[in-house]
Amino acid sequence: MTNSITRLPIIKVNADESKHTFDALAIEEPLEIRLEYGRGNERQIKNISVTMRTPGNDAELAAGFLFTEGIIRNLEDIANIGHCFIACAENKENIMQVSLNENVIPHLQNTDRNFYTTSSCGVCGKGSINAIHTVSSFIQQEDNNTINAEILYTLPDILRQHQKVFEDTGGLHASALFSSNGKLLIVREDVGRHNALDKLIGAAINENRLPLNDNILLLSGRASFELVQKAAMAGITIIAAVGAPSSLAVQLAEEFNITLVGFLRGQRFNIYTAAHRIVIPEYEITH
Amino acid sequence: MTNSITRLPIIKVNADESKHTFDALAIEEPLEIRLEYGRGNERQIKNISVTMRTPGNDAELAAGFLFTEGIIRNLEDIANIGHCFIACAENKENIMQVSLNENVIPHLQNTDRNFYTTSSCGVCGKGSINAIHTVSSFIQQEDNNTINAEILYTLPDILRQHQKVFEDTGGLHASALFSSNGKLLIVREDVGRHNALDKLIGAAINENRLPLNDNILLLSGRASFELVQKAAMAGITIIAAVGAPSSLAVQLAEEFNITLVGFLRGQRFNIYTAAHRIVIPEYEITH
Repeated sequence: MTNSITRLPIIKVNADESKHTFDALAIEEPLEIRLEYGRGNERQIKNISVTMRTPGNDAELAAGFLFTEGIIRNLEDIANIGHCFIACAENKENIMQVSLNENVIPHLQNTDRNFYTTSSCGVCGKGSINAIHTVSSFIQQEDNNTINAEILYTLPDILRQHQKVFEDTGGLHASALFSSNGKLLIVREDVGRHNALDKLIGAAINENRLPLNDNILLLSGRASFELVQKAAMAGITIIAAVGAPSSLAVQLAEEFNITLVGFLRGQRFNIYTAAHRIVIPEYEITH
Repeated sequence: MTNSITRLPIIKVNADESKHTFDALAIEEPLEIRLEYGRGNERQIKNISVTMRTPGNDAELAAGFLFTEGIIRNLEDIANIGHCFIACAENKENIMQVSLNENVIPHLQNTDRNFYTTSSCGVCGKGSINAIHTVSSFIQQEDNNTINAEILYTLPDILRQHQKVFEDTGGLHASALFSSNGKLLIVREDVGRHNALDKLIGAAINENRLPLNDNILLLSGRASFELVQKAAMAGITIIAAVGAPSSLAVQLAEEFNITLVGFLRGQRFNIYTAAHRIVIPEYEITH
């Protein structure tokens, strides 16, 4: 993760004193994702997206993004992912080219949705929800996933211990994947919360873990529509966020029977949807 | 701001007890911005952007977005802004149509930059920086803007007192504009930090305040490249963030001689760029 941090000279002011020193900052740089696809002579390259990201795990980010946007279906679609060496000489590391196998037809109608920030139809989110229904093969599968509240309490501390870059810079979002008994499986950080989740899902694809329907996804911050959408694509059934969810995140989680927990802090949390997967202290809930 | 919050049933778990109750959530919904422009019979409508936003101040958001993306130059370009009544009947409130005056030619080459998340050239940010140089008339003007550290300390508390929706939901980013003596002028909240800033700049345009070169912009969270870019377009010279800046945010602030302060908490902060505008406690800085 050494290329995720840069050190810059600053003036640090603390009440009555100030000094020249150095501060560690999270690196933010654009990553362009290019897709190479088609057969034989008709092979072509298309720019799919540019995202502001923290360098590191770029191949996972590219694979995760293409998967959560519904452009590819699985790891077998991909022939190769690598940095591109043809653009501005000094920015090679900011272009990832994903080459698909010859027989794979990418679902590029979804790239428009993408530019339209996940609302393809009449700006109502319905188009997006339908797209997930159509594209994801993991939605609405049966699952017996549950997590004990006692285990849920422990997850934010475990994440913090593994959030190396955040600790140094205070500047990164994290996504973490846990087993249902609270074991940390994957953690990824980024200046963009959607990138942290794409990297995590890209890593999970790489490790052949999908669908993630017996895992818990922990988000270091808030839960937005976009994050729940990406999680749904990977078949995630339990999402716990340290911060607040948005109204549309709750709506989408409800639609897909995903358990959504918010404000997970200390021994407290709120359950917004699909409460049956959380084993809470007292069986009897006070009304 | 009543349409910024919704109340939903939740289960609240607190150590050994849990109860059914209600929680206030920040509303997140897509807003499509459409531009109507051209002369006489050649008048046309183009979809410019869809962003996930918290409803409220939509006209400011649309105007601020078009301005900070360099598509329009000033308020006089706009003939009318209003909700659109032609799409899905139930989602009228999620489409804003901005009609330009007949003689105005929008700078639509910038909409590609937009889809490309602010990196038009070879994924190096240089294209964006050049675009700001070209498009903004407020860049690199002379200014004598300064702020006393003692006043800087007070700004986050003032913002918190005015962040109504955050207080209820814990779910919103805020941007606030202050005078150099610490008086709050404008505050806007949104689920998206870029939307909060676009709303603020839209309000400032509406109040004929631009350029904002004798004000202070306070950001409730982190300072990203995109936020510094939007601030630069409005001629802002001092940005203070409660959270961490990214590397590219610092680079852009330096390029445009913008004072960038981070981690403003209690009586502490870090100065990343253009320190001359901050009057710090002791004139003598310890090296």
